[in-house]
Amino acid sequence: MNPLDFLNAQYRSMPPVAAMQIQALSWDGDALRLRAPIAANVNDKHSAFGGSLASIMTLAAWGMLTLKLQQCGIQAQVYVADSHVRYLKPLYADLLAEARLEPEVDWDHVLHSYRDRGRARAAVVSAVLGPEGEPMATLTGRFAALRAD
Amino acid sequence: MNPLDFLNAQYRSMPPVAAMQIQALSWDGDALRLRAPIAANVNDKHSAFGGSLASIMTLAAWGMLTLKLQQCGIQAQVYVADSHVRYLKPLYADLLAEARLEPEVDWDHVLHSYRDRGRARAAVVSAVLGPEGEPMATLTGRFAALRAD
Repeated sequence: MNPLDFLNAQYRSMPPVAAMQIQALSWDGDALRLRAPIAANVNDKHSAFGGSLASIMTLAAWGMLTLKLQQCGIQAQVYVADSHVRYLKPLYADLLAEARLEPEVDWDHVLHSYRDRGRARAAVVSAVLGPEGEPMATLTGRFAALRAD
Repeated sequence: MNPLDFLNAQYRSMPPVAAMQIQALSWDGDALRLRAPIAANVNDKHSAFGGSLASIMTLAAWGMLTLKLQQCGIQAQVYVADSHVRYLKPLYADLLAEARLEPEVDWDHVLHSYRDRGRARAAVVSAVLGPEGEPMATLTGRFAALRAD
């Protein structure tokens, strides 16, 4: 199964994610992009609901880390540990989120830790991008990868 | 309309919130409690989806601040500015969230700022509580209240 089909099957299997109609769009080996229609994600002000913005950025980061590990032959359980979200501007268009590792992450160290101890942590960054590619919301977070039983 | 009916009408009007079946449960003038069924909010591991935990804690804080302002005769637009979420333990039961102002918030100062300038900020704390009342996830955040047009 290709990585996007794999992720989309995972997303569709989660009821709240299916309801937000979040879909994986592209994966280049480092950055994962997801999208969701604004109609399924509006708040009382007709802009994107903060919980939907947090959800799509969290899922983008989770998916990115899952695929990065799969590229290295690792099928881990990936968990979000904590995250910091900044809501910068109201968004009135479809949600487009992009996630990647934080630039300072030493990926070899992550892999070494996982292979050595069956667990590893990695810092990630996500953003929801506006029509001009500018960040409308950002997420920085830490995720844990644990060896699946 | 009583405060809980008012909030529940707001929540039901937001498609992603309706999908998560999030409902206001109780309000004592300081703390607001919301709940949501686990079935509508599970992830791939059959525990509560991180985005749903973030959403219910954000909505609890948003609703709490909205009701605190209404108690003082203020109909403001309330926005989340930023938030920090810690995911402490996987939750396999229905989601119960509670929000209140951060203890150090000077509420009189918030009201004064809003009445003076038409805008104010307030720090809030939310948690999702487990079956024994212990925190399964926590949120600290800052919200803005702006005078409605």
